[in-house]
Amino acid sequence: MRIRLLAAVVVATVSATAAHADEGMWQPSQMPQLAAQLKARGLQMDPAALSNLAGKPLDAVISLGGCTASFVSPQGLVVTNHHCGYGAIQYNSTPERDLLANGFVAKDFADELPSDPNARVYVTQDISDVTARINAGLDAGMDGKARFDAIDARSKALVAECEQPGGLRCNVYNFNGGLQFSLIRQLEIKDVRLVYAPPEAIGKFGGDVDNFEWPRHTGDWSFLRAYVGKDGKPAAYSKDNVPYQPKSWLTVSQEPLHAGDYVMVTGYPGSTSRYRLADEVQDAIQWRYPTLVRYFKDYLATIERTTAGDKAAELKYASTVAGINNALKLYQGQLDGFAKMQDPVGMKRAQEAALKAWLGKRGAEGAAQTRALAALEQELAADNQTRERDQWFGSAVGGGLTGTAVRLYRNAIERAKPDAERESGYQDRDAPRIEGGLRALDKRYDPRVDKALMALRLQRYVAQVPAGQRVPELDAWLGIDAGDKAIAGLDAKLDALYAGSRLGNVDERLQWLKADQAAIEASSDPALQFAVKVMPALLRFEQEDKARAGRISALRPRYMQAMIDFNQSQGKPVYPDANSSLRITFGTVRGYSPRDGVEMKPFTTLAGIVAKTTGEEPFISPRAELDAIAQGKGKQYRMAGLDDVPVNFLSDVDTTGGNSGSPTLNAKGELVGLLFDGNYESLSADWIFNPALTRSIHVDARYMRWVMDEVDHAERLLEEMGLSHD
Amino acid sequence: MRIRLLAAVVVATVSATAAHADEGMWQPSQMPQLAAQLKARGLQMDPAALSNLAGKPLDAVISLGGCTASFVSPQGLVVTNHHCGYGAIQYNSTPERDLLANGFVAKDFADELPSDPNARVYVTQDISDVTARINAGLDAGMDGKARFDAIDARSKALVAECEQPGGLRCNVYNFNGGLQFSLIRQLEIKDVRLVYAPPEAIGKFGGDVDNFEWPRHTGDWSFLRAYVGKDGKPAAYSKDNVPYQPKSWLTVSQEPLHAGDYVMVTGYPGSTSRYRLADEVQDAIQWRYPTLVRYFKDYLATIERTTAGDKAAELKYASTVAGINNALKLYQGQLDGFAKMQDPVGMKRAQEAALKAWLGKRGAEGAAQTRALAALEQELAADNQTRERDQWFGSAVGGGLTGTAVRLYRNAIERAKPDAERESGYQDRDAPRIEGGLRALDKRYDPRVDKALMALRLQRYVAQVPAGQRVPELDAWLGIDAGDKAIAGLDAKLDALYAGSRLGNVDERLQWLKADQAAIEASSDPALQFAVKVMPALLRFEQEDKARAGRISALRPRYMQAMIDFNQSQGKPVYPDANSSLRITFGTVRGYSPRDGVEMKPFTTLAGIVAKTTGEEPFISPRAELDAIAQGKGKQYRMAGLDDVPVNFLSDVDTTGGNSGSPTLNAKGELVGLLFDGNYESLSADWIFNPALTRSIHVDARYMRWVMDEVDHAERLLEEMGLSHD
Repeated sequence: MRIRLLAAVVVATVSATAAHADEGMWQPSQMPQLAAQLKARGLQMDPAALSNLAGKPLDAVISLGGCTASFVSPQGLVVTNHHCGYGAIQYNSTPERDLLANGFVAKDFADELPSDPNARVYVTQDISDVTARINAGLDAGMDGKARFDAIDARSKALVAECEQPGGLRCNVYNFNGGLQFSLIRQLEIKDVRLVYAPPEAIGKFGGDVDNFEWPRHTGDWSFLRAYVGKDGKPAAYSKDNVPYQPKSWLTVSQEPLHAGDYVMVTGYPGSTSRYRLADEVQDAIQWRYPTLVRYFKDYLATIERTTAGDKAAELKYASTVAGINNALKLYQGQLDGFAKMQDPVGMKRAQEAALKAWLGKRGAEGAAQTRALAALEQELAADNQTRERDQWFGSAVGGGLTGTAVRLYRNAIERAKPDAERESGYQDRDAPRIEGGLRALDKRYDPRVDKALMALRLQRYVAQVPAGQRVPELDAWLGIDAGDKAIAGLDAKLDALYAGSRLGNVDERLQWLKADQAAIEASSDPALQFAVKVMPALLRFEQEDKARAGRISALRPRYMQAMIDFNQSQGKPVYPDANSSLRITFGTVRGYSPRDGVEMKPFTTLAGIVAKTTGEEPFISPRAELDAIAQGKGKQYRMAGLDDVPVNFLSDVDTTGGNSGSPTLNAKGELVGLLFDGNYESLSADWIFNPALTRSIHVDARYMRWVMDEVDHAERLLEEMGLSHD
Repeated sequence: MRIRLLAAVVVATVSATAAHADEGMWQPSQMPQLAAQLKARGLQMDPAALSNLAGKPLDAVISLGGCTASFVSPQGLVVTNHHCGYGAIQYNSTPERDLLANGFVAKDFADELPSDPNARVYVTQDISDVTARINAGLDAGMDGKARFDAIDARSKALVAECEQPGGLRCNVYNFNGGLQFSLIRQLEIKDVRLVYAPPEAIGKFGGDVDNFEWPRHTGDWSFLRAYVGKDGKPAAYSKDNVPYQPKSWLTVSQEPLHAGDYVMVTGYPGSTSRYRLADEVQDAIQWRYPTLVRYFKDYLATIERTTAGDKAAELKYASTVAGINNALKLYQGQLDGFAKMQDPVGMKRAQEAALKAWLGKRGAEGAAQTRALAALEQELAADNQTRERDQWFGSAVGGGLTGTAVRLYRNAIERAKPDAERESGYQDRDAPRIEGGLRALDKRYDPRVDKALMALRLQRYVAQVPAGQRVPELDAWLGIDAGDKAIAGLDAKLDALYAGSRLGNVDERLQWLKADQAAIEASSDPALQFAVKVMPALLRFEQEDKARAGRISALRPRYMQAMIDFNQSQGKPVYPDANSSLRITFGTVRGYSPRDGVEMKPFTTLAGIVAKTTGEEPFISPRAELDAIAQGKGKQYRMAGLDDVPVNFLSDVDTTGGNSGSPTLNAKGELVGLLFDGNYESLSADWIFNPALTRSIHVDARYMRWVMDEVDHAERLLEEMGLSHD
């Protein structure tokens, strides 16, 4: 499945899939200029409607923060992927009432279950260009830190102004490395409830084995509902809240979808790296991905070892395990994809050489862009000098119990400042999310497991960070020298830390959330003491990073402008790298040939579920489903030509992590499925795009309706969506 | 690749592939009655020609003993698979002149290399029904041993009479478990030379990884030539021999072959088990195949360990390793195939229950057949009581240096009898083959490796054979009791055996071939002493086996007749299980769907070779081939629609081990390729046939010609076959 974007263990960059001839994750505002292409592909609606954020379908497409979803009824019913609703399902699961295993269908509104207090539904309301306001008066020659601070302050001011009316979430999005800034305003709905999830044996059928694979047979959907206060405004969970009534909701298609048909996906793709420098590609291939692959494997082994035989602990870490398995396959898949390419770094270098040659003919403007590119390369090389420290110190202070302590202490430091001067993430607007995170921790935390993971992180730190990059504050806490490659007495140190800290208790955590800096510094809680000890280093590195980011923010836009100009001169599509803002991608339902002699067909079937079912994880199917298939139930969901109910399908639309749960729409803008994954061959498309092999994987709405009707008996929801049932 | 049928480590039963709607390995005599079906499939020649052993194409189809081949020129040029010519290539390879690695193209007749003295070309001349002569006066109630001896004596008499003129090989073949006996007369050509083999990187491209897999890109061909004396009669190798001039030879097709086209394969399939009892299927699934899979793995590991770093020893065992790897995948594939079926034993039992129910309505005849079936089941159950002993004692006395000693001693025992009374394999007619085997051993024997393999066999014997089945003679030689599960001092015992025996020397072996029984019994050679020690047990079990075989020979034909009658009553095809006699199978060029969402296409391409080439074994391609592909050489071999040269192709014809090297003929009877393998899904078709999944794999004649023309420069042979070249 596509990775959700919020997991702390996963670095920002996730993979992309990409389209056939229609590569591109387009900004809605770009759609009118693509009208001819859209029509040629088969779009049967006005392309202008696809740039209208206030109308159907776009205003029904919402973000869950890391995943995409859509409204499918006037009562705020939300459909997304099972793996996007996973947190909500897991949050409500206990060993006694295992909703992951058994699934859940709310009988009525009252039966719908409150989700994790951190769960959100974001409805995009407006996107406005704020480039001029961000950049006004900035000088390329100015000090990096000053430049960073200026952009940061202006962004915060714009956000504060935007969020002023309340119930809103605003963010400034950076397009093309800072060439353009947009202020995006979203309604922030805070009461999100679990309405329906199929059993894991449907929603996660094939599990990690099938993840990023085709052929696929996963029922990767779940249903949530957005609730608001009686006044119609966003409000924290309350029994008295009422279903949110969206202006628009998607219509589920009643028409058959076939191979060759037009499809489009609207959603919030997280991040791509299609315009990165060869040096950055090389670093990913040679260091970052292999390093993370090894780390994730050890991380998973640690969780497996420490949760063995403890069902409650296992449930608590199920979501983490799923996320890491996903990331692991994603990074390994990118490495495999790169390995199949003929010298990807060399290819990027050749492209850069071509760019430089082209700039060489462009006079003064070209010369300035060439200088900016060289300066950018230098900054990136300098940044790489501390990559081991940044990775492993960041990891050591960011995760688990001590990470919570670090965030509590940082919160106290920031709260002493005026709101506008606080670090992003610690402003008043962030307070509910911080509190939600502190509350939700209980559901995902076990001290024995967390201690083992902390040991792993610290061991990585001492083993991987060269003496020259080591952090004196952390070394001092560990009681070691910069040259040491092992930590004497680590077990005892961690035993004392976990035995002594009371932050495992939710009330204790919420108590410290209100404490000031001095109180935390005086605390005897060993986790807080750890935070106090390492904070100076953390702040020091942050200052350095900001200074570099400030300098890069003057350079990368100029490189990007050069790259865009160069691409446009060759007639190549120009769309910004994904940045979690709303995008549209369009293409065609189609299979592919992964290798000579093999053809992947675009649809899978119920018969394929039966054939794949072994009775062993992850290929167990519910008895009720196998019976319904054997009895040939639900004839109206069958597809002509396939002579079966279509389960999953392939298309060549261009998607990536963050797109999970995105509605897949047909030529009329009606819902025909949900995007939930890309094929294995698509993973390296994040960096380098191969139109022949890159495919997105969707769950077919006909399979979803068949299960809801014939297996899970969610007739109430089918009716709410205006759909018939047996 | 298809396994050759002669490897001693491989038990008789090998896998089958099978046809779509045209399941069946038909006897040539059956072809006229299939005329309508042949025409419907697209045959463009007189079906009667396919039953004429004396005319084209059948008289051009020859056996190599375990593999099939065909004449392709009036000068006795033979084409077969690379893996069928493997022995000849290996026989001529040394570390200094590695023909396996480098390939070989004879410049002219004088340059053609003599093969292993055991190599043969058998040309079928006549097939006559001898059922009446074999069965005359035999009584179902007679003693088993007497019955066996009677059939054996009559068969030998028929063979002796048939071989009287000299230069012939005759055999009595048992069809349908003894329901029919045919005497088959073959010309036996004894001077077989290596003419051309591509480098292993073409001929075995994909190696054991791709074995039994699709998509496939293997250039699995080699060329031999049959030589005879100046008088035109078969003769042992001599420099003065001349090329054999066959009456017919196959024409290589100049017409394109496409998906959906008619194809047929004529060849010598070894063995299938399509009419076996449920008990026999169960034994294969639950005991025989798992047991052999474990044994083969240990066997391979032993060879790998003992040949490590010794290139000469590695070359000597290359053919053995290839054979065992092949058998290993074959058995594992059958097990995998069975595992995918819903209760195959239950299915067979249900079929038997249906048969029995049908017989129950057939009056006295049905009752007699029912009794025969019950008696057959009892005999098989009794046979299973000693399966561990039969497997592991047989293995311990049959292989390597001691196996050679056992054969020498047995030869002396048998030679004391009149020829007609000797055991099969030890008659005068067998003498050249025995001598050839003794001569060729040097090329495939290394004492260090053989000793380790002997230790493995003996350890299996003591570990696997229960006390009640243990063999006193072998236990005594080992110095252990029947209850012992380990052999004290085995290493020392084997050290002494291998240090003391002189049978590793070819002259010594040939010396003992002439010795009489008393001389061998008086020998101080420890390998011969071993043979003398275990021979009484071997002969005792042989008598028991013959008695049982005699009893079964009265029962199985009645069961088979019942099965055939029953099948015919349901309109099911009735063809005998494969038995190494000449058969014809026909069908269509076509792909298949191995699982939901995946389609295997029927042709692979040169581009696929490039994509598969990793530069690491077994996916290395010769530089010359990659260059020829990159340069687009050989446009006349390209296939319209594919836009490339077709490399391998799939069809639904019904083949099995022994068919390797068989010519694949088009609707006009012209050569379009060579059968060389079946897909993985076909392996369990040996027992239970699945028309949707079972496919044969062929090398396309266009690829063969392309390599001969553009890469290996075997223009001389292309010209000899009447083919153009660049």
